[in-house]
Amino acid sequence: MNTTGHLFTLTTAGESHGEALAGIVDGMPAGIRIDRDELARHMSRRAPGGAMGSGRREADRVKLLSGLRDDVTLGTPIAILIENSDARPGDYSQLEHTFRPSHADYTYQAKYGIRAVEGGGRASARETALRVAAGALAMQALRLRGVTVHAYTSRIGSVAMAAGYDNIDHDAIYTNPVFCPDAAVAERMLAEINAARAAGDTLGGTVSCIIDGLPAGVGEPVYDKLQAMLASAMMSINAAHGFEYGMGFAGAGMRGSEALDAWALDGCGRLRTVTNHSGGIQGGISNGMPVTMRVAFKPVATLLRPVESVGLRGEPFTIEPRGRHDCCVVPRAVAVVRAMAAITTLDAMLMARKW
Amino acid sequence: MNTTGHLFTLTTAGESHGEALAGIVDGMPAGIRIDRDELARHMSRRAPGGAMGSGRREADRVKLLSGLRDDVTLGTPIAILIENSDARPGDYSQLEHTFRPSHADYTYQAKYGIRAVEGGGRASARETALRVAAGALAMQALRLRGVTVHAYTSRIGSVAMAAGYDNIDHDAIYTNPVFCPDAAVAERMLAEINAARAAGDTLGGTVSCIIDGLPAGVGEPVYDKLQAMLASAMMSINAAHGFEYGMGFAGAGMRGSEALDAWALDGCGRLRTVTNHSGGIQGGISNGMPVTMRVAFKPVATLLRPVESVGLRGEPFTIEPRGRHDCCVVPRAVAVVRAMAAITTLDAMLMARKW
Amino acid sequence: MNTTGHLFTLTTAGESHGEALAGIVDGMPAGIRIDRDELARHMSRRAPGGAMGSGRREADRVKLLSGLRDDVTLGTPIAILIENSDARPGDYSQLEHTFRPSHADYTYQAKYGIRAVEGGGRASARETALRVAAGALAMQALRLRGVTVHAYTSRIGSVAMAAGYDNIDHDAIYTNPVFCPDAAVAERMLAEINAARAAGDTLGGTVSCIIDGLPAGVGEPVYDKLQAMLASAMMSINAAHGFEYGMGFAGAGMRGSEALDAWALDGCGRLRTVTNHSGGIQGGISNGMPVTMRVAFKPVATLLRPVESVGLRGEPFTIEPRGRHDCCVVPRAVAVVRAMAAITTLDAMLMARKW
Amino acid sequence: MNTTGHLFTLTTAGESHGEALAGIVDGMPAGIRIDRDELARHMSRRAPGGAMGSGRREADRVKLLSGLRDDVTLGTPIAILIENSDARPGDYSQLEHTFRPSHADYTYQAKYGIRAVEGGGRASARETALRVAAGALAMQALRLRGVTVHAYTSRIGSVAMAAGYDNIDHDAIYTNPVFCPDAAVAERMLAEINAARAAGDTLGGTVSCIIDGLPAGVGEPVYDKLQAMLASAMMSINAAHGFEYGMGFAGAGMRGSEALDAWALDGCGRLRTVTNHSGGIQGGISNGMPVTMRVAFKPVATLLRPVESVGLRGEPFTIEPRGRHDCCVVPRAVAVVRAMAAITTLDAMLMARKW
Repeated sequence: MNTTGHLFTLTTAGESHGEALAGIVDGMPAGIRIDRDELARHMSRRAPGGAMGSGRREADRVKLLSGLRDDVTLGTPIAILIENSDARPGDYSQLEHTFRPSHADYTYQAKYGIRAVEGGGRASARETALRVAAGALAMQALRLRGVTVHAYTSRIGSVAMAAGYDNIDHDAIYTNPVFCPDAAVAERMLAEINAARAAGDTLGGTVSCIIDGLPAGVGEPVYDKLQAMLASAMMSINAAHGFEYGMGFAGAGMRGSEALDAWALDGCGRLRTVTNHSGGIQGGISNGMPVTMRVAFKPVATLLRPVESVGLRGEPFTIEPRGRHDCCVVPRAVAVVRAMAAITTLDAMLMARKW
Repeated sequence: MNTTGHLFTLTTAGESHGEALAGIVDGMPAGIRIDRDELARHMSRRAPGGAMGSGRREADRVKLLSGLRDDVTLGTPIAILIENSDARPGDYSQLEHTFRPSHADYTYQAKYGIRAVEGGGRASARETALRVAAGALAMQALRLRGVTVHAYTSRIGSVAMAAGYDNIDHDAIYTNPVFCPDAAVAERMLAEINAARAAGDTLGGTVSCIIDGLPAGVGEPVYDKLQAMLASAMMSINAAHGFEYGMGFAGAGMRGSEALDAWALDGCGRLRTVTNHSGGIQGGISNGMPVTMRVAFKPVATLLRPVESVGLRGEPFTIEPRGRHDCCVVPRAVAVVRAMAAITTLDAMLMARKW
Repeated sequence: MNTTGHLFTLTTAGESHGEALAGIVDGMPAGIRIDRDELARHMSRRAPGGAMGSGRREADRVKLLSGLRDDVTLGTPIAILIENSDARPGDYSQLEHTFRPSHADYTYQAKYGIRAVEGGGRASARETALRVAAGALAMQALRLRGVTVHAYTSRIGSVAMAAGYDNIDHDAIYTNPVFCPDAAVAERMLAEINAARAAGDTLGGTVSCIIDGLPAGVGEPVYDKLQAMLASAMMSINAAHGFEYGMGFAGAGMRGSEALDAWALDGCGRLRTVTNHSGGIQGGISNGMPVTMRVAFKPVATLLRPVESVGLRGEPFTIEPRGRHDCCVVPRAVAVVRAMAAITTLDAMLMARKW
Repeated sequence: MNTTGHLFTLTTAGESHGEALAGIVDGMPAGIRIDRDELARHMSRRAPGGAMGSGRREADRVKLLSGLRDDVTLGTPIAILIENSDARPGDYSQLEHTFRPSHADYTYQAKYGIRAVEGGGRASARETALRVAAGALAMQALRLRGVTVHAYTSRIGSVAMAAGYDNIDHDAIYTNPVFCPDAAVAERMLAEINAARAAGDTLGGTVSCIIDGLPAGVGEPVYDKLQAMLASAMMSINAAHGFEYGMGFAGAGMRGSEALDAWALDGCGRLRTVTNHSGGIQGGISNGMPVTMRVAFKPVATLLRPVESVGLRGEPFTIEPRGRHDCCVVPRAVAVVRAMAAITTLDAMLMARKW
């Protein structure tokens, strides 16, 4: 289905090369003043055309058609419309004749029984523009409860930041085109991208995300554990291949005595943990510490050079590089990870009656 | 909430130290003969008491109270009852006075507003016995469509199998107490466990899982991508801290030209991919190749030696090692990973009308 | 599916002639002391064996297996078990050979593809015992917010109470075996039942229900209007054929000027309506007035005399009256209507954050 | 929430006086050619401006923004956009100062905590335009399986057709402005409307609905009984106050021996019932006979003459008749009942795997 969430939901429609994308956000609390400039800033961070971009110019101009009066939420659903001003179907004409490797062409045909580029266009990352818009709304609700969400590029190709989530300068994230808060690492990431682009190749990476200020008690104890909701949200992002929170995969190699988060009292006499290997979640429920996670993205499968593939009857077919494609989508995915974390957090807070 | 799934669902109830665990499986197709011996074998693999076990003897004798006639499914819901024959509440009495580190004691209190060991007992891995039972039912339905699910221990502490999912001998999995299909690696895992137990410490690890025979076309294209459903299922398992499928986190460091799964025709003229970096899923939908995934488990937080913690008012409190606890739960988690994969696969097949 | 509700849910399993009925109540708020005697009283009102009863003796002894500590709710799911102490499968043996008229025999076979009396036994009203148990729990939560739910027999066959919901003496409901609060009408209902039973025939009727004390603001504005949730709940009860709230079908014949509920201030300066044609709901949302509704039940199709039907291949087949069956189930349905109203009200309050 | 359905869903957004209405239809099967003229015909039957109409001119021009290629469905969600070309907010200015009797003004404020005419505009029947569009899509899918849905006005005020669903000439429904298939009754209905309008008053009525060709086996056995799904759908329509199927409320007065639907073989040797008191549903599941139902609508509360009410602080306030309002909305509701029946039927067929 095309809906995510329980009490705060986003339903989306629209193909990449169609007339428009449309989304409906339901469950937005009433009485919240929406900052449209902030919404536009989030959209611009996901938009193509930056240093990493594909050159495709999309305004991603978001229309909010309902659910607001004088920019204050009514509690009723908010319809989001993003018109496709710059679709160029011609660029994709060869897709009628081939299944691109590691794309959804073949699987969409297997699922729907028809070969339709438009339908497969639903697999395009363009759909995530609606998520960023919905996430921007969610963040504005979260802020009223002191909850903030940040995301940043923590790895591109072979260049990675140090492990962990400590000492991240959130203000530095958007000071470079790869959205990495460590300027020195960002430089090396850019160099890696330039080299890959020159080779007609693409790069993967990881995006890290931190939710600060989340009160204890959010998350369901068994099947909608907070980490399960977050994992589902993140693994629904195009090209995501892995999710971890807190100590993550590194925890597989730790001993229990190292992995324990000892309790202590903070200056105000409140319980907090000395370390945060648990990533702010214990037994599926938030414990009041920052919630930390990391998402792995594979390199996109659309190379900038010819690729050998097969035609619809299995015959050899060479795919020529056409259109405008990113060498590395990870920086653009930062806005999507952040948005999905915000959407999920607001949903989980509403479920836990903590918003 | 305490339900997982869309069309094939499992709802569970019951605390670790209560009278019984109860589950309801809904959406089981009609007309399937249930092999109760096979069900019992799955249960025994999750049960404590093996080489890795805690010594706690639980029959995990599963009663199926409804939905069957002469062991053939009716299509109506199947109620599962597992009575707690060996609860020893006395072992847990000190929990009334402390929040154990890296447990759910504190977060349950934050969520429900009451301090109740029984409620927190819902966070116990004992709940997963119901999942294994439901998974055993799902596997019997899947087999009728040629779909099989296997899981195995791929890492314990510092001892890991080679990366990837090729050349796994499923028949070898249950030939050693750590459920690792590589006998030499299993030996080293056992040694690592023995050393950790001697030190009063605990170990984490990873469980790998392969779904074979899944037809192409299963999975929803956007928010219920097959990998998102699997990620949510796996991250709902106690102590799981990470999920990856296909190339997973390693994909973050690959180039697009390496990560591509080229198409080829198999001997029968059907499309298949030469490699399987995509883990059998493209655009959220299965492509007919094996679905591969790996789940990371942290070391359990209940050590076999005294642990410093805090009491309910933040005062120092030393937790003495009591009761029966596993040094490494990863082998027992193999049955749970397998069951959750089976439950999710059947659910996804029903959603895609491919069962 | 076999689950009702959104945030307060009941999932049920179990066939009429099987080993047991099992249900799981999820979403029960924590910290509520359960009065088990009150629970038993609700069960006894649905139980057979009264003046109207079928003679079948079922203890309907309810076991609550989880979710409680010292009879106080933990917030975790409550498993309900009702063992079938008195199933007599022999009574139903002729069902193997015929489709009873106006029963679910044929439709269950059409749905599940198998002819199984056990599966069809899921269509038995026995399943409603679990609803009454869950409703009794819900009522105890509702009472803490000042919300009470009452139901009563308002019509049996040709004998009906005066229309409307005013001046009902809730204390009088259980003073006669038909559960009608008007003693004189109850006498006539009993006479009608005795006459029908003597003729080997069965009777239908209506059950009315009033929810008092519900605060304004409960119900969703469009698709989960409070009346839609209540209608769905009531129409899920066996033999129910109609639902109306407030002015109901009579409203079809009224003029707008008659049907209007004028606003007025009560003694405390609060808004209330002078009349209650709206049945306490406007635009799908409660307005603070009593919520009133009525449910129509057809006469049950199991007569107390031989009935002509067809065999599995369409040949003539005479069904002999066997077993123990009610002449009129309406009085027993009172407890079920009340329970479903309570379950739905608590669910709607939780959704509206008014509990 | 603002979504209806399980596998075939409609999510809607938009206030009556806002910029646009937007809906997303999810679960539409792939490969169905959409007849846009037929869609427009359905829309015109709900549109205002006919003999009964309010004079408000709304094009209700439906844009389908996604999910189609050359008017053939892709299986992906279909976004529906209806722009408000003729909103006149000035007409509603006095609503800022009063709670209209028997409207949702007060209850929306109670729910959302804000007094916003726009939000309350969500309670307007304008939202049902999206349902009619979605229903038109559903009907085109149903027709491919031989299922047709018809609805008609069966009562207005004191003028009613004979009870029952036999001998309805579906071709005659749209031959008069009240959409009643009996021309003589339609004449009397029109006279009743003219008299009421002259008196500045409004009228209620009933809409009947018949689903033909539904195969046996559709509907869930317990909580999503087919009649429960239909009741929920119908009671979500503005002004609906009652629902019945088959024998309905009349069944309350029948004896079991009268109410029984005896089985017989039709000319092709298939089982069918001689009568259809069951309304095509037994035990919650369709039996292959026509599914019949009736929905009661109250007279709308917006009179065409001044109405005494209260202001926001309870002071007396006279509401002047402004704007354009229907004397009787029942004929326009015919398209909505038909649409909701179609939406629900397709959803139920998909759930039962009978589509």
